[in-house]
Amino acid sequence: MKNLENIMNFILEIDKLKNVFRRTPIMSGERQENDAEHSWHISVMALLLKDYYNKPVDIEKVIKMLLIHDLVEIYAGDTYAYDEKAYHDKADREQLAAEKLFSILPKAYKGCFMSLWEEFEADETNESEYASILDRTQPLLLNYHNEGRPWIKHGITKTQVITRVRKVIELNNPLSKYIMDIINDSVLKGYLIDN
Amino acid sequence: MKNLENIMNFILEIDKLKNVFRRTPIMSGERQENDAEHSWHISVMALLLKDYYNKPVDIEKVIKMLLIHDLVEIYAGDTYAYDEKAYHDKADREQLAAEKLFSILPKAYKGCFMSLWEEFEADETNESEYASILDRTQPLLLNYHNEGRPWIKHGITKTQVITRVRKVIELNNPLSKYIMDIINDSVLKGYLIDN
Repeated sequence: MKNLENIMNFILEIDKLKNVFRRTPIMSGERQENDAEHSWHISVMALLLKDYYNKPVDIEKVIKMLLIHDLVEIYAGDTYAYDEKAYHDKADREQLAAEKLFSILPKAYKGCFMSLWEEFEADETNESEYASILDRTQPLLLNYHNEGRPWIKHGITKTQVITRVRKVIELNNPLSKYIMDIINDSVLKGYLIDN
Repeated sequence: MKNLENIMNFILEIDKLKNVFRRTPIMSGERQENDAEHSWHISVMALLLKDYYNKPVDIEKVIKMLLIHDLVEIYAGDTYAYDEKAYHDKADREQLAAEKLFSILPKAYKGCFMSLWEEFEADETNESEYASILDRTQPLLLNYHNEGRPWIKHGITKTQVITRVRKVIELNNPLSKYIMDIINDSVLKGYLIDN
């Protein structure tokens, strides 16, 4: 019963992810997206885009990673992808957050969640690379379909976005072309600074 | 490229799930939960509670089901669990919605998503039963930790909730006890009508 109580406490605690808001608006544009919605969205995307990732992946592991990859932000906050200053201590803040949050769980689950999160962060396996591609592609879609508002607000350049989705471009397949077309169109429309 | 465009259109369309609001508040109580957040939450729960489901399950399939089980509500709307009148034509409304939504996808994915959704709705396999248990357990947790507000507002009885989570109770294990304790405490506190 002790184990179940720990699990339930964790389930209640992670509800806070629904209040961690991102810079990206939802498609309808009326409010920012939160991390829980984002995690759900890219998990569904994982099912649909795996033919466009050129390497074999264990899709179950990819989805587990995507479901939990942002949980650390409950304590560490969302760090904007283009905020170089905040990125400075991001790893330290998130490591502490992971330790604090996953310690609510029984030991075996703590180990499992910690290891999934660390694999995602290390970005060295096919699964973490595919997960990271989805994590970076989804906000690009939402920003583009919101007339680039977050990019314009923060003065983001084409080079910054290309650097961010470099691994998608390097796939050199129809998904890469789809994303590059969006980036080029965003420059044309003035959503991104052409530098 | 045609296939990818269809997939991308679907990915953009399902963003609308973030605007389908439920009767259940989030833990902090300040607003209603939406279907995207709910789907994410129960997918994480699936990873943590499988030892408390007494039958073997293919966890990858369970999570796929949970991720997509509420998508039909984008067109059919959320039907309140205790609204008997709206339940009358729920199946028909949702079948039409599934056909409309999943038809955006290339044929193979349409078949896959339709079959996952139909399996969830039919509730005849271990995977769909476990998914359904999670789908019914999570709002109970959120309602309880919000002083039973949605239950009080709609005059919900103990019997109605027990009927709704019957399969959790029938597991006859620590999870059943945990849930029964919450239900009994909710009656004591006046969140549920004792009938």
